[in-house]
Amino acid sequence: MWADLAPVGRSAATGGYLRQPWTSAELELRAWFAEQAASRGLVVETDAVGNTVAWWESGRGPGVLTGSHLDSVVDGGAYDGPLGVVSALAAVDRLRERGVVPTRPLGVGVFVEEEGSRFGLACLGSRLATGAVSWADVEGLADRDGVRLGDVVEGGSSSLLADVGCFVELHVEQGRALVDLDAPVGVASGIWPHGRWRFDFDGTADHAGTTRMEDRADPVLTFSMTALAANKQARLAAPDARATFGRVEVAPNGTNAIPSRVSAWLDARCSSEPALAALVAAVTEQAVARAERDGTSVTVTAESVSGAVSFDPWLADPVARPRGWPVLPTQAGHDAGALSAAGVPSAMLFVRNPTGVSHSPAEHAEMGDCLAGVEALADVLEESLR
Amino acid sequence: MWADLAPVGRSAATGGYLRQPWTSAELELRAWFAEQAASRGLVVETDAVGNTVAWWESGRGPGVLTGSHLDSVVDGGAYDGPLGVVSALAAVDRLRERGVVPTRPLGVGVFVEEEGSRFGLACLGSRLATGAVSWADVEGLADRDGVRLGDVVEGGSSSLLADVGCFVELHVEQGRALVDLDAPVGVASGIWPHGRWRFDFDGTADHAGTTRMEDRADPVLTFSMTALAANKQARLAAPDARATFGRVEVAPNGTNAIPSRVSAWLDARCSSEPALAALVAAVTEQAVARAERDGTSVTVTAESVSGAVSFDPWLADPVARPRGWPVLPTQAGHDAGALSAAGVPSAMLFVRNPTGVSHSPAEHAEMGDCLAGVEALADVLEESLR
Repeated sequence: MWADLAPVGRSAATGGYLRQPWTSAELELRAWFAEQAASRGLVVETDAVGNTVAWWESGRGPGVLTGSHLDSVVDGGAYDGPLGVVSALAAVDRLRERGVVPTRPLGVGVFVEEEGSRFGLACLGSRLATGAVSWADVEGLADRDGVRLGDVVEGGSSSLLADVGCFVELHVEQGRALVDLDAPVGVASGIWPHGRWRFDFDGTADHAGTTRMEDRADPVLTFSMTALAANKQARLAAPDARATFGRVEVAPNGTNAIPSRVSAWLDARCSSEPALAALVAAVTEQAVARAERDGTSVTVTAESVSGAVSFDPWLADPVARPRGWPVLPTQAGHDAGALSAAGVPSAMLFVRNPTGVSHSPAEHAEMGDCLAGVEALADVLEESLR
Repeated sequence: MWADLAPVGRSAATGGYLRQPWTSAELELRAWFAEQAASRGLVVETDAVGNTVAWWESGRGPGVLTGSHLDSVVDGGAYDGPLGVVSALAAVDRLRERGVVPTRPLGVGVFVEEEGSRFGLACLGSRLATGAVSWADVEGLADRDGVRLGDVVEGGSSSLLADVGCFVELHVEQGRALVDLDAPVGVASGIWPHGRWRFDFDGTADHAGTTRMEDRADPVLTFSMTALAANKQARLAAPDARATFGRVEVAPNGTNAIPSRVSAWLDARCSSEPALAALVAAVTEQAVARAERDGTSVTVTAESVSGAVSFDPWLADPVARPRGWPVLPTQAGHDAGALSAAGVPSAMLFVRNPTGVSHSPAEHAEMGDCLAGVEALADVLEESLR
């Protein structure tokens, strides 16, 4: 399966992936998934935005769902998302090899726009499927080219999860905890609260050569101090906080013009919700204070904020404990977090990442660990389907 | 003439101008110029890259050239460039009304890519026309979309200035010196040495949530400190220095990914060449020191550097002194600087800018001051044509 996926949406320049939702790369991935489902006799169901579940129809009652996402961040790695989908399909094969006959339907799910890399809202597909957001809430979201979500897909409400009783997502680890613990597979305890805040720094466009230094209102300076302040605040709260300005847009972005505006997105995460609120408040306060010195102004808009998630221990623990899999928190958002927040009992398995690097072309997992992940997922699913 | 020009290349969103060279907006401006020349019986000559001179053929000997440029910075104002071209055409009309019969040919020139807003090299057209750069030096320059100069225009060497004896450029002032002096028109003494340096900050792409703060190599931090350092260094040397990071590009520029690279362009200008070298060295030194702390690296490339220019006092002074026009230096590069550096005796006139704002949609000049500028330019040209 990896050989089929390797070239799709890959940048020749960096080796990273550009699998943004509702692009030709993502359509190719969906076609691949439909083929894989058909070859296993799974019945595919798709909702209006493109979330898909391939059902192994067997037994009765609320289904057990596994899977993940196929989209990537801009210039991302091969494993974040696809590992969960490939492993889910491989786990179906393992269960059949083991002679398991599910007492309930087993679904392999693929959620769209998990990364929020195109329309800015992470877990957009799973949030729509669970009803956490409505179509009316999101159809007006625009991508970087100004294209609205409502223009690329028809949309509407989704009943895809109506028959889902629980969800198990396997994911490549985005850190090195399993390396330090010398374990190929681990179980997630929960997800840190996290979110994205857009900072708009407004100044005054002017000539970079003729405008005296003291006459300027340069928003690059306000942004720069804010980026350093965010880093410092998160370091002060280490190891329980993260703060990053990974996306920055400058207007008009000409070498010889003082910019009129810098827009920058703060990605912040903490081990508790009060700590996260305090971190964002501290960064905002320092931005506003510096803006006053620079003669600029700053506006902060929360674009997507997710509360803390605690996964259901009864789902994975009975399998994990006897096998000695370590239990760890994660700082990354996932579709399992969206489903858990919506009341669907959820669990996550992590597969070791030798470097810890993620959201980068250098993201990697060893084949042996991936196969251990498939076995572990099959074990958890087999237990859930008893 | 202003009514014809007002809508060309104008952004509906900001009211600013997007007149990048070799685009449809610039072609429209060139067609307008050809029409204006034809209606005055001027003979148009164009070189391979599109630099144009409209000659009033009269008398013999080396010609007197006036004019400026029609391209704009990204989202620039209406006057920077076009005021010099419109005033040159209007000055031809004034000389004819005065009954002047030139003893030498009088040319109205339009140079391409003065701002360097597309291919990064300021005064690209006038540098080519004077031979300061060769076509081979510049044909490989790429714009932001990766399009090479050699792909948009045939190019080649230029003999457009072979018959030019001197150059007089009128320009809107990019500062408020004439406001403070209560004068509608001034004469330039010279241009500060200035240039553009590209700073590439390289770090390591990784997940914004899961990567511990102490494990990061985030180039946004190195850039941010460098931007603040550049501002501080220029303020320390005030009023004799300027430093600006007006253009910034982040890769991959995703909210939840630590960037792998930030490229940012330093625009620096000083009243003397040693001071400019010291300023750039100080900023570079602080960038390198911070990169060491951040685990990033920084590479600095000089993209375009112009030495100090002193304009020829004998060209404008005999006209300026009896009329009491003030003499002032400028921090901005101009085609007159490129011609002066190539040994063409050159002079510049400035027209008052009520706010001093330039390279912005808010750039402005009062009609009365513009008309005074035309009279002044006609006076200087009449003197030069005796």
